[in-house]
Order: sequence, then structure tokens, then C-alpha cells
Amino acid sequence: MNNPTKKFSWKHKLHEIIYEADTPEGKLFDVILLIAIIASIILVMLESVESIDNKYHDALYVGEWIITILFSIEYILRVISIKKPTRYIFSFYGIIDFLSTIPIYISFFFAGSQGLVALRALRLLRIFRILKLARYIGASNKLMLALRASKAKIAVFLFFVLIVCIILGTVMYMIEGAENGFTNIPKSIYWAIVTLTTVGFGDIAPQTPLGQLIASVIMILGYSIIAIPTGIVSAEMNKTTPDHDHNTQSCPNCLKSNHKEKATFCYNCGSILNP
Amino acid sequence: MNNPTKKFSWKHKLHEIIYEADTPEGKLFDVILLIAIIASIILVMLESVESIDNKYHDALYVGEWIITILFSIEYILRVISIKKPTRYIFSFYGIIDFLSTIPIYISFFFAGSQGLVALRALRLLRIFRILKLARYIGASNKLMLALRASKAKIAVFLFFVLIVCIILGTVMYMIEGAENGFTNIPKSIYWAIVTLTTVGFGDIAPQTPLGQLIASVIMILGYSIIAIPTGIVSAEMNKTTPDHDHNTQSCPNCLKSNHKEKATFCYNCGSILNP
Amino acid sequence: MNNPTKKFSWKHKLHEIIYEADTPEGKLFDVILLIAIIASIILVMLESVESIDNKYHDALYVGEWIITILFSIEYILRVISIKKPTRYIFSFYGIIDFLSTIPIYISFFFAGSQGLVALRALRLLRIFRILKLARYIGASNKLMLALRASKAKIAVFLFFVLIVCIILGTVMYMIEGAENGFTNIPKSIYWAIVTLTTVGFGDIAPQTPLGQLIASVIMILGYSIIAIPTGIVSAEMNKTTPDHDHNTQSCPNCLKSNHKEKATFCYNCGSILNP
Amino acid sequence: MNNPTKKFSWKHKLHEIIYEADTPEGKLFDVILLIAIIASIILVMLESVESIDNKYHDALYVGEWIITILFSIEYILRVISIKKPTRYIFSFYGIIDFLSTIPIYISFFFAGSQGLVALRALRLLRIFRILKLARYIGASNKLMLALRASKAKIAVFLFFVLIVCIILGTVMYMIEGAENGFTNIPKSIYWAIVTLTTVGFGDIAPQTPLGQLIASVIMILGYSIIAIPTGIVSAEMNKTTPDHDHNTQSCPNCLKSNHKEKATFCYNCGSILNP
Repeated sequence: MNNPTKKFSWKHKLHEIIYEADTPEGKLFDVILLIAIIASIILVMLESVESIDNKYHDALYVGEWIITILFSIEYILRVISIKKPTRYIFSFYGIIDFLSTIPIYISFFFAGSQGLVALRALRLLRIFRILKLARYIGASNKLMLALRASKAKIAVFLFFVLIVCIILGTVMYMIEGAENGFTNIPKSIYWAIVTLTTVGFGDIAPQTPLGQLIASVIMILGYSIIAIPTGIVSAEMNKTTPDHDHNTQSCPNCLKSNHKEKATFCYNCGSILNP
Repeated sequence: MNNPTKKFSWKHKLHEIIYEADTPEGKLFDVILLIAIIASIILVMLESVESIDNKYHDALYVGEWIITILFSIEYILRVISIKKPTRYIFSFYGIIDFLSTIPIYISFFFAGSQGLVALRALRLLRIFRILKLARYIGASNKLMLALRASKAKIAVFLFFVLIVCIILGTVMYMIEGAENGFTNIPKSIYWAIVTLTTVGFGDIAPQTPLGQLIASVIMILGYSIIAIPTGIVSAEMNKTTPDHDHNTQSCPNCLKSNHKEKATFCYNCGSILNP
Repeated sequence: MNNPTKKFSWKHKLHEIIYEADTPEGKLFDVILLIAIIASIILVMLESVESIDNKYHDALYVGEWIITILFSIEYILRVISIKKPTRYIFSFYGIIDFLSTIPIYISFFFAGSQGLVALRALRLLRIFRILKLARYIGASNKLMLALRASKAKIAVFLFFVLIVCIILGTVMYMIEGAENGFTNIPKSIYWAIVTLTTVGFGDIAPQTPLGQLIASVIMILGYSIIAIPTGIVSAEMNKTTPDHDHNTQSCPNCLKSNHKEKATFCYNCGSILNP
Repeated sequence: MNNPTKKFSWKHKLHEIIYEADTPEGKLFDVILLIAIIASIILVMLESVESIDNKYHDALYVGEWIITILFSIEYILRVISIKKPTRYIFSFYGIIDFLSTIPIYISFFFAGSQGLVALRALRLLRIFRILKLARYIGASNKLMLALRASKAKIAVFLFFVLIVCIILGTVMYMIEGAENGFTNIPKSIYWAIVTLTTVGFGDIAPQTPLGQLIASVIMILGYSIIAIPTGIVSAEMNKTTPDHDHNTQSCPNCLKSNHKEKATFCYNCGSILNP
């Protein structure tokens, strides 16, 4: 009768280590996972560089196996330590973890050359593991708050930018035409976005005087309206920054806080505040 | 005698559906129109892509007829449901609606190949229908207010940018000359705008050391003065953001104002505020 | 004895028209001058476009003579209507006016082909007349105040940007070398400025992995520090915008103004303010 | 017995001149050093320009010897005037000073052609002497304070930008592939940084429609999130700007604070404020 309790507590302990970061073991697990993720991403990058892959193919192959085994263990531990395994398995990260771990096993058993190319692509999904690092940022910080608060305004702004780009892209397609690189409307819209956002690749550039005039308008427009998202976020950041007009006092009678800096009486119950 | 009233009420109902969006039918009409506009714009885009046009020419042709008939019905309904049809017909949207609907009819009756090219261009005007979507943004939002309030300052800024570009463009024309791509002054001004707005296509780039020096000055200038519109809009956004935390009440006893939104007692003298 | 007085008053009148803008005649003169300046600049631009110059050479030549005669008259009037003509003649605008008017006369008398090219360049100086438009902006507006107030900070910022560009340009010269377009240090610094300001022409681009890594650092640096001038000007604009904390009341006793919004007593003499 | 004291005082004097800038001699030393540093940097730049180096090789060689001798004297003086010479010698500036002075001596004694190339590169380190100019900026100014205060937020932002670039770079590598210039993942990430920061060299540009679509997303993202560092710094600048208009006094009668700088009477109760 002792055994199941023990097993449960063992599972509970494991859950604490893997899914939480409050205990020293949990932190250690997090640090090891962090290093493994970064190592795996560097590995993926190096493999994609042909010259490095040719030279150190075997070392990279071994490294990939090590990483894969580590992630396999992590995957199995995650599955067995959670109460409802399906909740993890079908979560976004669960799918990413599975898809980015499995390819090398398949390539080991079915050493066909055709399928391997598609599998390699699958292996690149491992890059999404980097999103796990995102939770170290701390979702509750002011930046995210400011961004979330100005979400609606930014959406309106992006919608406006998109309409401008669609119209100006079409106009440029009419003016410049296929002979100057504006081969179709989607490509012209792409060019308008490249120009409005002041990126300016230069792979497509207007050649006619009229086209250059409209391009100038787009550029100056893009240069000016960049002020809008900045203004939105700035205003929002100013708001979320602690309000210097309110002090941290709380009323000795009704315990309400957030009084005005200069207040001598509580705004809620009217009793005198401590000076 | 009942008939004309009925007809009028029928017209009135139609007007409500088409021009307003308060009734469920009006909202439904808006949603359908929205979808039709987006569909028509996607159609225009797809037709401009040669490879897609070659493959799915017939499907696109059918799609265009469906869209055209829908817009024709909309056009007729708009004309008959309004009291003074000319007010709609000669409005901006009326002209756009007419010009973007008519080409396919003409091409059907006069199947001449020459005129068709010009007609295709006319069909592209349909893109301006997208502007109709703009009214869903809500013109009264803060962003527009902030922009409108800082209109004069932004105009001064743009005027300043233009003068700088004209002078520096001319100077670059003198220094670099036609052999380095600065073939004439308007083109040099175009290049100065491309550079000052930090777009930098790279289709024209200074080759002489002196030209590169002046280009550096233009770039650093452009990089610095982008702060100006941003500063303008930021300051304006800060102003227009209403202070949600304070109401406009004033204390009946000491006449102090600027109380907190939920205050029941004056923060200054402690007397009860009017509810 | 009447004559000199008359002459003086005539001169005085002329001075009022030309140098001031308070009388209707003065405003008219300003408007005509404005149009003439813009016309002359457009003329200079058109002449620089070879295809237009070839087609409408005679019309442009006539236009230039008209503009030149107008500016000659203006120049003479300015000289005779001012008390100390030398003060105008040797001022910045006086020199610009003279240098931009004289070339066509010289080319008329000495029709040598060699000197003409240099003279044409001189004629381009007319572009600086556009600076005269600058006075319509109003030098006392807030934007200029904000810019002037943050002059020192912006200078520090530009100095910092320059040091960064010099160091990173040299580093890139060492890494990439002449074979990848970084032929010498000044050119590499030019490239660093192009990159840091996010212009990115692309005429020179790093080819080695290490060079691309450092380029990435420069780009992210440039992308981040653009916030600094913006922050400076924003903060300054916020300061110069009318302080909502102060009302426009003035004390009925001591006439001091600029009281706090909530003030009931004058901060200077202690008497009760009108509510 | 007098001698060591004298020597010490002579050393002390020298230390004052070289390491401090409070005495007139110290300031003079600083100015001379400043000029020498700028001259040496200009020299390094000019030498790197092949055409100038070919023409004025001898003059540049002499100039370099003069600079080198000056810096050698400075180096020796710095070493002998400091109490613990090793503290200077192994400091960052000590190493830079030594490494940037020594090459010309070595090339004089060992005139081998092979080593010279490496030595030339070493000479370029002299550029880091420019960092000495940085101390004239004054580290305590508000800009640095604002930047230091927002360090953590900016780090979070850069971390976020990097994750976005790594993911989008990998996605672009999958979509575009080596045939369109995205030869490996690090290069694709480099391209993503080039695009997100709105630099846009154009040496690599997406060719497939899907690639251009994702590029558009990256560009609009980059165009929008530039608002974040700006917002951070703006908010910080607003905070650090001290409110010059209000003092920290409080009224002896009603205890109100936040009085105007020049106030003599309380704005609330009218009683005299303590001077």
C-alpha cells in the first residue's frame, strides 16, 4: 500500500522539477534544458552551412544524436510526470517537441535518400524550441502591458498601412508596369511595403519619373507615419509608469490606497490621512 | 394613394439597409459588401499574376462576372434608394463604383483587342473600393485626433524635409554628375529623399569620396530628424489621452477640483462630494 | 529742399515693401518673389533633364532671361532701398542673389564654350534662394524651440554615433578587406554610417560570416539607438507644450500670472484669486 | 635627503598634468593629446586609401614617425609618473597604447616584408585611442542615466528581436533555399536582421511569392516594434527630466507641498511660506 503513494510522490517530485522552477533541482533542470536548446539550435545552424557540414559531418551527427537522446528523455519524463499526458502531447510545445525529436529516428530506420530531405526540413522545426526561452522574459513586465494595452490602436495602424500599400502598389503597377520589375500587383504591393517601411532592398526600383515621384511620396509617408506606433507605445509607456501624482499611503480608517499626492483627507471615507 | 407611400417606405427601408448600419439588415449588407470588395480586390491581384491568369483564366473570368453583377446591383440600388441620385453618382465613391464596374460590359459588347488594354487598367480602379473599408476604422478615434491636431507641425516638418532634399539633391548633382547615375536634378532630389528617409534602394549610390561624405551627412540628418514627427505625435498623444482617473467634479465646500473618479469625499477638506 | 525728403520717403516706402511684409504691397511683393523663386528652381531642374532641355531649349532660355531680369530688378531695388547697401551686398543672401543672377549675363557677353560649363554650375546656386522660403516657417515655433533646447544632447549623440562608426568602419576594413568592397577606411566608415542609420544602399555588403556578424551588431545598434534622439526631442516637446498644471489667470492684486491650476491664493502676494 | 622628495614632487606634478585636467598644464596636455589622437586617426585613414598612399607615401611615413614618437613619449611619461606602473601597462588603454605604438619600431628594425602586413593591421588598433575622447562627453549626463535605467528593458527587447530573427531566418531558409541566396541558416538570420532593422541591403532578396509575403511580415513587424525602444527611452527621459518649476517646500499652515519655485505665499491657504 506504500508503493503507489511512493510512486505518486516520485511523479509529483518529477513534475515539480520539470514543470516548475521553484526548487534548486527545478532551476538546474531549467538551466540544462536552456543549454541543450541553445546547443541544438547552434547544431541546426552549423549543419545548414555546407562547408562546415562537409568538414565536421561525423561530429555534427554524433552531436545531433546526443541532443536527440536528451530531448527524447525529456519528452518521456514530461509525458509520465503529468497527470493527463494528452494535455502535454497535444499542446503546441508538445507537438513541437515530438516533431523536432522524431526525424533522426526515422532516418535511422528507413535510410532512404528521398524522404531524408523532407525529414531534414522537419528537423528545422527544432528552432521553435527557442520560444521556450521566451518564458524567461517574464510576461508580466511593463513592456508587454504597454503593448497589450495599445493592441487595438496598433491593429488600426497596421490596417491603415496595409490599405495604403495595396492602393499605392496597384498605382505603381499601372505606372511602371512589368518592364520595370513591377510584374504583377502582389509584387508591387510587396515593393510598396518594402518602401513604406523604409527597408528599401533595391531589387525593384522605379525607373519612370512619375514612378519616382510616387515612390518619393511613399517614402516620406513611411518616414512620417513611423511616428504613429512610436507615439502610441510612448503614450502607453508613460501611462504604465508609476503615477507620480498618487502616493502609496493607505487610509487609516477604510484602508483605501492610491490617494492623490497632496490629499489630506481620504477620498473614500473622509477621515484624515496620516501626514 | 397607398401605393406611393408604400413605394416611399420601401425606398426608405432600402436606404436604411444600404447607407446605414444600425439595423441587422444594414449590418448584413455591410458584411456582404465587405466580402465582395475583398474578393474583387483579390481577383484583380490574381489576374495581374501572369502564371495564375494563364492557368485559371476561365475561373477568374467567371469570378469577375459574378463580382461585376453584384456591384452592378449595388450600384443600381444605391442610385434608386437615394433621394437625389446625382449626389451619389457624382460623388468620389459613385464615380469609382461606376468606372470599376463598367469595363467588363464594354469589353463584352466591343470585343476589340486594342481598347481592352486600356479597359483592363480602368478595372484596376476597383482597388479604390478598399477605401470604403476605411470607415470601419472609426474616424473619431484618438489617433486621428492626435494626427489632426499636429497637422500644422507635420506640414512644417515636411516642408523643411523637402527644402533640405532639394538643396542636397542639387549639390549631389553638381558633385557626382551624370556619370555616377545622378543624371539630372529631379533624379538627384529623388535620391536625396530615398537617402534622407533611410530607405536606401541602392539603385543610385555616390561614388566619389566627396559625394559619400555628403551622403553621410544626409543619412545622419535623416536618422536624427526622424525624431521630430515622432516627438510631435508623442506629445500630442500624451495630451489627447484623457485622464481616466480624475473626474471634473469640484468640491461644494472648498471648490477644489481634479478629484479621483471614485472619490466620495474631497481630498482637501473632507466634505462629501455631490454624487 | 522737398526733393531729398521725397526721395527719402520713396526709399523708405520701397524698403517697407521689399524688406517688410506688414503692408499689402509688402505682402504682394513677397508673394511675387515666392512665385519667382519657385519658378526659377523648377527652371533649373528642368534644364538639368537632358530630354526636356533638348526639346524646349528655347523656351527654357527665354524663361531664364525673364527670371534673371526679375531677380536683377529685385537685386537693384534691394541695394538702393537699404541705408547701408554693403550690409545687404555682403550678407549671405546678397552673395547668393548676386552669384545666381550674374552667370547668364557673362555667358551672353563671352560666349566661350569652356567657361559656360562652370557658369552653369554657378547658376545652380540659385537653388539656395529656396532658403528664403524658410522664413515663412516662423522661427519662433515650438519645434525650433524644442530642437534648440536639445541641441547639446543631440550633439553628444551625434559625436557618439561618429565614434561608433569610425571604430566599426575600421574593424570592418580589417575583417572584410579590399576584395569585398571595403577598399579603404574612409569608405568603410561611410559603409558603417550607411548601415547604422538603417539606410543600407547595398552597393557594399559584407561577404564573410564574421563581417556579417559585426554588420548585424551595427544594424541592431542603429535600430536601437534611434530611440535616443527621439527620446530627447519627445521629452523636450513635452516640456515646451503648454503646462496644463498652470492656468491663465493673473492675480487681481499684483498681476502675476502662471498660477497653479488649483490655486486659490496668489503665490506671490497672497491675495485671493478670482475663481 | 632633499632629492627623493623633489623627485617625488616632480612625479606628482607630472601625474597631475597627465592623468588630471584641473590645472592649466593638465588642460594643455589634454588638448595636445586630443589633436595628436585625431591626427593619428586621420593618418591611419589616409594610409588606407591606396591612391593617397602612393602619392604622399613619404609625407605619411614622416607623419607617422612624428606621431609615434609623441605617443612613445606619452607612454613613457605615463609609466614613470604613476605609482604602480603595472596598473597602467595592463589596463585596456595601456595595452592599446603599447600595441599601437610599437609596430613602426619593429618594422624599422626587422624590415621583412611578410611580418609587415600583420604589423600594419596592428597599427589600425590606434583607432581605439578615439575612445579616449569619450570621457569628454561626461558620463554623468542625463542621456546615459536614461539609457542605464532602461538597460534591462532594452536587453529584453533585443532578446525578443533576436528570437524573432532566428525563427524567421530559419523559416526563410526553408522557403527560399540556397538557389535564391539563402544558402544557410546563419546567412538567413543575417538577412532577417537586415530586414527587421529596416536596413535592407538588397544583396539577398526573396524571390518566391511566399518568401516575399513573409518578408513583408518581417518588415512591418520591424517597422512597428521600433516603437518599443523609443517608447522605453522616451518614458525614461521624461522621468529623469527634473521638474524645474516646483520646489520641495511644504506650507507651514496647511502642509500643502508642490509650490512654484518662486512662490512666497501658499497657493492653497495664502499663508507665508518659509523662505
